[in-house]
Amino acid sequence: MKGLVFHQPGVTAWEDVAEPGLKDPADVIVRVETTTICGTDLHIIQGDVPGVAAGTVLGHEAVGEVVEAGREVRTVRPGDRVLVSCISACGRCGYCREGSYGQCRGGGGWLLGHLIDGTQAEYVRVPFADHSVHLLPGGLDSQDAVLFADVYPTGYEVGVLNGAVRPGDTVVVVGAGPIGLTSIATARLYSPDRIVAVDRVPGRLDWAGRFGADARVLASDEPEQLVDDLTDGLGADVTIEAVGVPETFEMCTRMVRPGGHVANIGVHGKPAALHLEDLWLKDLTIRTGLVDTSSVPMLLSMLNAGRLTTSPLITHLFELEAMEEAYEVFAGAEDTGALKVALKGPQVYRADKSSLVTTAH
Amino acid sequence: MKGLVFHQPGVTAWEDVAEPGLKDPADVIVRVETTTICGTDLHIIQGDVPGVAAGTVLGHEAVGEVVEAGREVRTVRPGDRVLVSCISACGRCGYCREGSYGQCRGGGGWLLGHLIDGTQAEYVRVPFADHSVHLLPGGLDSQDAVLFADVYPTGYEVGVLNGAVRPGDTVVVVGAGPIGLTSIATARLYSPDRIVAVDRVPGRLDWAGRFGADARVLASDEPEQLVDDLTDGLGADVTIEAVGVPETFEMCTRMVRPGGHVANIGVHGKPAALHLEDLWLKDLTIRTGLVDTSSVPMLLSMLNAGRLTTSPLITHLFELEAMEEAYEVFAGAEDTGALKVALKGPQVYRADKSSLVTTAH
Amino acid sequence: MKGLVFHQPGVTAWEDVAEPGLKDPADVIVRVETTTICGTDLHIIQGDVPGVAAGTVLGHEAVGEVVEAGREVRTVRPGDRVLVSCISACGRCGYCREGSYGQCRGGGGWLLGHLIDGTQAEYVRVPFADHSVHLLPGGLDSQDAVLFADVYPTGYEVGVLNGAVRPGDTVVVVGAGPIGLTSIATARLYSPDRIVAVDRVPGRLDWAGRFGADARVLASDEPEQLVDDLTDGLGADVTIEAVGVPETFEMCTRMVRPGGHVANIGVHGKPAALHLEDLWLKDLTIRTGLVDTSSVPMLLSMLNAGRLTTSPLITHLFELEAMEEAYEVFAGAEDTGALKVALKGPQVYRADKSSLVTTAH
Amino acid sequence: MKGLVFHQPGVTAWEDVAEPGLKDPADVIVRVETTTICGTDLHIIQGDVPGVAAGTVLGHEAVGEVVEAGREVRTVRPGDRVLVSCISACGRCGYCREGSYGQCRGGGGWLLGHLIDGTQAEYVRVPFADHSVHLLPGGLDSQDAVLFADVYPTGYEVGVLNGAVRPGDTVVVVGAGPIGLTSIATARLYSPDRIVAVDRVPGRLDWAGRFGADARVLASDEPEQLVDDLTDGLGADVTIEAVGVPETFEMCTRMVRPGGHVANIGVHGKPAALHLEDLWLKDLTIRTGLVDTSSVPMLLSMLNAGRLTTSPLITHLFELEAMEEAYEVFAGAEDTGALKVALKGPQVYRADKSSLVTTAH
Repeated sequence: MKGLVFHQPGVTAWEDVAEPGLKDPADVIVRVETTTICGTDLHIIQGDVPGVAAGTVLGHEAVGEVVEAGREVRTVRPGDRVLVSCISACGRCGYCREGSYGQCRGGGGWLLGHLIDGTQAEYVRVPFADHSVHLLPGGLDSQDAVLFADVYPTGYEVGVLNGAVRPGDTVVVVGAGPIGLTSIATARLYSPDRIVAVDRVPGRLDWAGRFGADARVLASDEPEQLVDDLTDGLGADVTIEAVGVPETFEMCTRMVRPGGHVANIGVHGKPAALHLEDLWLKDLTIRTGLVDTSSVPMLLSMLNAGRLTTSPLITHLFELEAMEEAYEVFAGAEDTGALKVALKGPQVYRADKSSLVTTAH
Repeated sequence: MKGLVFHQPGVTAWEDVAEPGLKDPADVIVRVETTTICGTDLHIIQGDVPGVAAGTVLGHEAVGEVVEAGREVRTVRPGDRVLVSCISACGRCGYCREGSYGQCRGGGGWLLGHLIDGTQAEYVRVPFADHSVHLLPGGLDSQDAVLFADVYPTGYEVGVLNGAVRPGDTVVVVGAGPIGLTSIATARLYSPDRIVAVDRVPGRLDWAGRFGADARVLASDEPEQLVDDLTDGLGADVTIEAVGVPETFEMCTRMVRPGGHVANIGVHGKPAALHLEDLWLKDLTIRTGLVDTSSVPMLLSMLNAGRLTTSPLITHLFELEAMEEAYEVFAGAEDTGALKVALKGPQVYRADKSSLVTTAH
Repeated sequence: MKGLVFHQPGVTAWEDVAEPGLKDPADVIVRVETTTICGTDLHIIQGDVPGVAAGTVLGHEAVGEVVEAGREVRTVRPGDRVLVSCISACGRCGYCREGSYGQCRGGGGWLLGHLIDGTQAEYVRVPFADHSVHLLPGGLDSQDAVLFADVYPTGYEVGVLNGAVRPGDTVVVVGAGPIGLTSIATARLYSPDRIVAVDRVPGRLDWAGRFGADARVLASDEPEQLVDDLTDGLGADVTIEAVGVPETFEMCTRMVRPGGHVANIGVHGKPAALHLEDLWLKDLTIRTGLVDTSSVPMLLSMLNAGRLTTSPLITHLFELEAMEEAYEVFAGAEDTGALKVALKGPQVYRADKSSLVTTAH
Repeated sequence: MKGLVFHQPGVTAWEDVAEPGLKDPADVIVRVETTTICGTDLHIIQGDVPGVAAGTVLGHEAVGEVVEAGREVRTVRPGDRVLVSCISACGRCGYCREGSYGQCRGGGGWLLGHLIDGTQAEYVRVPFADHSVHLLPGGLDSQDAVLFADVYPTGYEVGVLNGAVRPGDTVVVVGAGPIGLTSIATARLYSPDRIVAVDRVPGRLDWAGRFGADARVLASDEPEQLVDDLTDGLGADVTIEAVGVPETFEMCTRMVRPGGHVANIGVHGKPAALHLEDLWLKDLTIRTGLVDTSSVPMLLSMLNAGRLTTSPLITHLFELEAMEEAYEVFAGAEDTGALKVALKGPQVYRADKSSLVTTAH
């Protein structure tokens, strides 16, 4: 089969790889119907994630069909259409027993496209299937559903839940990329009084508005002053960092009110300064976290009931074999305006070709 | 009357000052029976707290007798023996209504010995008395009780409650000064499995043992390795920073397990590095905070029931007029071994002279 | 002035009473701009609330203007337009310090129209004004705002917060009177998956739909079967009792899923059977409660931002002097279709006469 | 092998039964080292638990050695010494994912000695072994450890955690049988100010004192008056029902303060009256629940560290084959003073015969 293989920093290829087989009786093999590319994949390609071995197939998000199931798998079987979570969970360790799947100590965690071959391929092996894939309600479109492998639960769990958003709150989301946008969309589930989106790209702020931001401000346009004005100088109840650089994290710690919450979602490559000389007495709660995907069943149910917006997040659609072009479009987001790109496998692709937003050729 | 007046960085004097009178109908005037000196007072004298105006009487902890009460005061009256909290609270603003007295927006907060004259004097005016002083149960010794003006509630609220200590936890307390010791003593209220104390002074570690630390380790003696060994490499459930320098804060963020809590109590003068490149995915909760003293009624009840250790914390006892000598002993803690020094006013002093640990001359 | 005086069970009159004056320096006198009638007032008239002395002016909800303020009052002054909360709170006792104003032990609690003269009059004395009235944002209509004296915070605090409604939940509200309707409206702040309304009157179910219920079922039409069908036999996450009779409370305990929450809002006159032989192992949480009105500032802010529906709840509007007719209309709700009736005082009445829905004569 | 077989109400026998074998690849077979008898077993024999089929081996608590493990079992293997939990958990359903194992919807829940053969036998088959047995730390005595299969986690989870015990609380435990005693012992982990034990048997109150009750009162001796006196008329913060009859449940709802918690542990056979006419406005939280045993790892760690008292709970020790005599002693507790009886299997029995408290013959 074909897969997107990481060879060394800067070098990847869509090429022939061995089809995966069951290695453990808790595994399933999934034929990939739809996958997508994550900002983290770009970090891997740049060489920022040393755990990724040469030869690894990338990708950690997918919707697909179970084609083979190990003998221990009890919750899905061949023929089932499933969401492949970005987190694999043993289900037995102390962390998994508390739903902290991202911290699994039993061999799980972020495996796909990281420590083992991932979803940017025609087939993928998913370990610990009973805790790592989710049966999909029948009618869900795979382009919508694939956003629940990582993007939606991350915005919700690491942004909104860690930020403890409550009715009436002022919430600031710094960074209006896919994760920031899902933070905005899911923050609305708790009826904050207002959501302020901050980004340095005007087009992203437009998206923020479509996902529910009540106020939008360029990073260059004094966002701290705006928050100050909106809150009578008190600061925001919740600030959510969805960029991953020291400047935006530090901005979040300045914009939050005494007693407020800072939720960091960004993947950081270097330290930030924590200005304890100002913050030690501010009663702050700062949370960091990797997604657990424990909220996926609830979020899928909300999606199925039409209570969450998804489609506009997929700006570009490709056939699976156009993977390399999709990477170019995604990596060049400033020019292409890409938010998330979806890649559809051949069989399903033929079935609903008419709905394609952008074709590969 | 006499009071300890801050004139400029490095210059204070025990000298004549005007006796305080009621300025607001919610005030009380308290005759100081016992007061004490806080590490923050030393910071003020060093010039680190710019809000303190020249001429201010220092001190924010006291036990005493109400001698005059404004006409709005409803919960105490002249003749009552009270604990003067380090935090004054308007009781009406949004923060006070949630018990976040330290963040009072109605004119309260940390006022005594900071923005107004404090407790290191014969008399002190306490604003917003109904929310800022506590009636003392009859039999309590003033040396015990004075520790509940700041030291005990700070260790408990900012350390133990913000750290969310639970039964079975491994708790690390970095810094075994008075605040670290009360964190240890009050962490035990939640039955952690073990408490590890870290300090750079052997004598302080001895104290930590007396307050309930199960393991004690010098900062120079690889505390991180010890915590690693004790927790099978996982890290502590809770780390409590009770020093106030970047090194110890950063140590706390390294010693905590994924999913754990870091509670900062230390008063910091400069930024710490937050190593988000390691911590972004560790599901950490980091809390900062100023004490609210909302736990004082419960803690006093525990003290009264004999469930909290206090006396050993007062290592030196002086007459009030020996204030300057007391400051020297307290500032020279490395040599004198001082933890907390207590100063007793003249009238009460005569009554129980026999119990003095150390006299002034 | 005139007021609605309770003389004995079954006997009330709109008659001359003495104008209230300040009795305590924390009181305010409020000229009533708008008041309303509560189902509890009908219970009082029926003699079900023995604490109400003959001669008491009824009513515990109002919007009005402060005309006189005691010397201790700090947060409002004459000329301010305020919401008078149904709960008066001393602000100093242990319960008030935790925001549990309904349980005030310092002389507050439900006083107005119960233990002291209430709001169904031209003027009302409100004790503990700083914790018992709320400044109104300028533009709010008094008919909207008066619903936040009791009806909205009760539905929200005692129904939604005590029921711990979460995104994705199935919520059942039994009883679609004013309190049930505000439970429905405020449950939506937490984005439940669906809200099921149960009532025995078809017209009330229509209202439930307008306030946001997704499914509506007559009490006679097998509501338990419907909930069973909607939840695959599991039961609702949250059931909210807003009637006050044993049958509906017991229905709520049958319709809730294992691990779910039952929130009782209803004012009950006799015991219900708690079927512990079935429920002991169901992991239920059952909450009862009197409103605290601690959520009023947040709810008013949501109202001001246009995020809460109110106007349709006032079905009938009268001049204050038509109080007796208003009681008849309200008591005869089955025929008149009344939900809440509003009564407007003379001065304000003249100013906006054109907006009256129903006049008294 | 031999086992205690339930034939029909009133008729059981220690007789030959088929040795259990693996039925599912997630099962283990455990050789019973120590088992015990629960009050629920007596209810079964009286015919009160209709789900128990004739021919079922009773018992749901054991310590033993794994002698065979299904091919899916990953956390234990033959030769391991384990605690067999009274709850079996699939680990995959929504309830199990939240740690609510007692409510398992995937085929687990209370199975042993209820829906399948139990632990009062030489061998027992335990389904879903990875979530239903716990590896024992090496040095633990089996008589201590067997109390953690049901008795200790029930007192802790359903009593103390559901009751939300906090430092400084007044806690009342009604019923000083084994479950009441473990509620007392584990309530102390949260440092309540005082624990009041209520029972109708003086000898049980003596035990309550040994487990940490500060006050003890006979049910006939006005316990409500005592609680009233101890709390200045306010009532207890937490009341824990550990009997299972309407009278004691209703007593718990009368003795709790406004805003307090009632935790029901008792297994009830008929409804109780919930006096909503008094309670609707008291801000009560009433919890019911089946144990999950999710706290077992923490509790075992506390036991291993010497922080929990256990041994005195086992008042009588028998050889396994003396099961029928053990039942008589346990059922006649009023005369024999039995709290828990332990039964030891032959091999282990020989090893530590000298420590027997009571022998069978």
